[in-house]
Amino acid sequence: MEKKIMAINLKKNTKENINVIKGLKLGVANAGIKSMNSSDLLVISIPENSSVAGVFTQNQFCAAPVIVAKEHLKKGNEIRALIVNSGCANAGMGKQGIDDTNSVCKSLAKHLGVEQKQILPFSTGLIMSKLPVEKINKAIPEALTNFSENNWLEAAESIMTTDTVPKIYSKKIKLKDQSVTITGICKGSGMIYPNMATMLAFIAVDISITKIMLNELIKEVCESTFNCISVDGDTSTNDSFILMGIPASRNLSLKKNSDDYTKVKSAISDVATLLAKSIVRDGEGATKFMTIHVNEALNQKEAKMVGMSIANSPLVKTAFFASDANLGRVLSAIGNSKVKDLNLNKINVYINEILFANAGAISTSYDERKIASEMKKDEIKLSISLGRGHTEATIWTTDLSHKYIEINSEYRT
Amino acid sequence: MEKKIMAINLKKNTKENINVIKGLKLGVANAGIKSMNSSDLLVISIPENSSVAGVFTQNQFCAAPVIVAKEHLKKGNEIRALIVNSGCANAGMGKQGIDDTNSVCKSLAKHLGVEQKQILPFSTGLIMSKLPVEKINKAIPEALTNFSENNWLEAAESIMTTDTVPKIYSKKIKLKDQSVTITGICKGSGMIYPNMATMLAFIAVDISITKIMLNELIKEVCESTFNCISVDGDTSTNDSFILMGIPASRNLSLKKNSDDYTKVKSAISDVATLLAKSIVRDGEGATKFMTIHVNEALNQKEAKMVGMSIANSPLVKTAFFASDANLGRVLSAIGNSKVKDLNLNKINVYINEILFANAGAISTSYDERKIASEMKKDEIKLSISLGRGHTEATIWTTDLSHKYIEINSEYRT
Repeated sequence: MEKKIMAINLKKNTKENINVIKGLKLGVANAGIKSMNSSDLLVISIPENSSVAGVFTQNQFCAAPVIVAKEHLKKGNEIRALIVNSGCANAGMGKQGIDDTNSVCKSLAKHLGVEQKQILPFSTGLIMSKLPVEKINKAIPEALTNFSENNWLEAAESIMTTDTVPKIYSKKIKLKDQSVTITGICKGSGMIYPNMATMLAFIAVDISITKIMLNELIKEVCESTFNCISVDGDTSTNDSFILMGIPASRNLSLKKNSDDYTKVKSAISDVATLLAKSIVRDGEGATKFMTIHVNEALNQKEAKMVGMSIANSPLVKTAFFASDANLGRVLSAIGNSKVKDLNLNKINVYINEILFANAGAISTSYDERKIASEMKKDEIKLSISLGRGHTEATIWTTDLSHKYIEINSEYRT
Repeated sequence: MEKKIMAINLKKNTKENINVIKGLKLGVANAGIKSMNSSDLLVISIPENSSVAGVFTQNQFCAAPVIVAKEHLKKGNEIRALIVNSGCANAGMGKQGIDDTNSVCKSLAKHLGVEQKQILPFSTGLIMSKLPVEKINKAIPEALTNFSENNWLEAAESIMTTDTVPKIYSKKIKLKDQSVTITGICKGSGMIYPNMATMLAFIAVDISITKIMLNELIKEVCESTFNCISVDGDTSTNDSFILMGIPASRNLSLKKNSDDYTKVKSAISDVATLLAKSIVRDGEGATKFMTIHVNEALNQKEAKMVGMSIANSPLVKTAFFASDANLGRVLSAIGNSKVKDLNLNKINVYINEILFANAGAISTSYDERKIASEMKKDEIKLSISLGRGHTEATIWTTDLSHKYIEINSEYRT
């Protein structure tokens, strides 16, 4: 039952649906961190003249690889490869953690004949556990041996932890003079909160983009995609979202404020949205996919605050798990958002387009049977009109089930 | 197994341990709101010349009784009775909700021969469900018939919803010239968050206190007791904490800044602390009682923010439920608190006095077996030293178990 909500995503996960990004190569290996049977190391090599931008967790206890990756991105040098391990987050390890991450970067740099600072490192998995540097360094040659532009699916598999399916999406669009491909992978299934969370996402687009433009693009895209999902309201130490502009052979470059720019941005947003939603669909123990659409807000920030307050309420989430039309909990969650001076008399709330709370109170047309039948669906949309402005935001989340407790209490043992 | 952590509380719940407050009478009735077998209506009558103060939920969707109670308290008139129903929260009902609450107040006022505005109303239970006014008004005479100073335990029972035990505590202290009694009851077991939450608490002290002094007292007491507990991070529409100063026959009154004042305040705090902790101990599905002590903070606010960030992390809570020493999740939760510029290198974290994270990283003396054995205990204390100041705060919370999901997905159905 649980994974019915994954169907949409699974359909995409065949090699035939994935478009390669010319020049970008991926190699995976089994370093024996996660288990002896599955790959847990990924190396992505990036051709010369590419640009790379990243956004990272806002958790102050951020992991060693996050600290090092941010530093390497700041240095203004050309990034030439990414290295990702799953099974160990290398977080909460102090100076040892930084040394370990540096050692891995150094080792890969040597193999590729580039500088250590040209490598971006990523780790995901258990916190406060030492990075098995020797295992990783020993497995790097294996990853390099199977380097290929066709390894996107293998790459998506290698970064999984509590994920039940690899997450990947690819899209082609036509611009005036060329076609552009956007392909991305991500991982994540619990701890998904506003500012990302136990998630890694890597998206590449085969067009030349300046680093400045890429930095703007990634922030805008992240704000309405990965920062709009929530599974359990927790935020991890390791979250990273990387966007890569890989110059195609024709070497056309993107101009700011052009039609092409708008099209590319919107396509990257589409890929990021689908990946973000696939994280929610694979949310730990999720049995329902919930879309929370808040409109008539004064601004984006308050629309998201209301949406997230609903998405992160355990009482709302358990009611949806039980298909129990206890929708007063939704009102209570709206009231708990930190948005000041809400005019309750102007708030309307709909479930799958059916009005159930009108002017802040139970609707006179409220029909328990009708609502109950909507609550039973796997995909539920809550719409909240705040009646105070013209801005909207969409948040994606899941219910909270027994399975979530099971997964999270058994993760380590 | 679940209710082992309640033992401390249960011992107190015998009539012998409860001291009456002379002049304060309690009566209960079965209005048939909750079920036909248990009382769900409570009336408390307060003698003349008493003073009453209250603090209420900060949820903007606050329930009708909260709106009315706040109004009646503001009017500066003498409060003469409290009326409480369980089973229906009368929240999210708009104007109808206000009318219903007013009707109940009016009915009780008539019976008691006082004014409507001298009644404080309270409701707890299901949100967005119409208050059964006729049932309540019909049951009021029954409550008045069994009026007695000895009904504290019956009162505690009548306000229960998902609570598994009545919550009551009583204490006597000696001042210079007299002895003072403090007796209180409360309800609450889920949705317990900083600014209170599905909780009602009524505490009476048999000494004359001015209303101004009582208003200061209740805020200070609440800040370090009911505002320091968290079960699931949700905040309800109905929370109310009422403090009553009932003049004893000798009619000694409390002077500000006297030794007696300090003693009375500390005793009220003791009663409120025990009641607050009993809510956590009875937390929905709780199997562990956790005390989170944050010290070396710059101020109270940031100490509480760090404590609450840990208390409200589902990942921390599920790890404790599983007795899994996945303590990196505690570091991650500290990093997620909104406290700015934490110096991770100065943070030490202890579990039951054993240091496991030193200077922000795993301790060199970390002994998995030792930690694992601490994790198995029913009562766990986490101590966090922030290394940046001299202020401390204590937060009480529980783990997050299968039972929580069960209770909250079955509450209505």
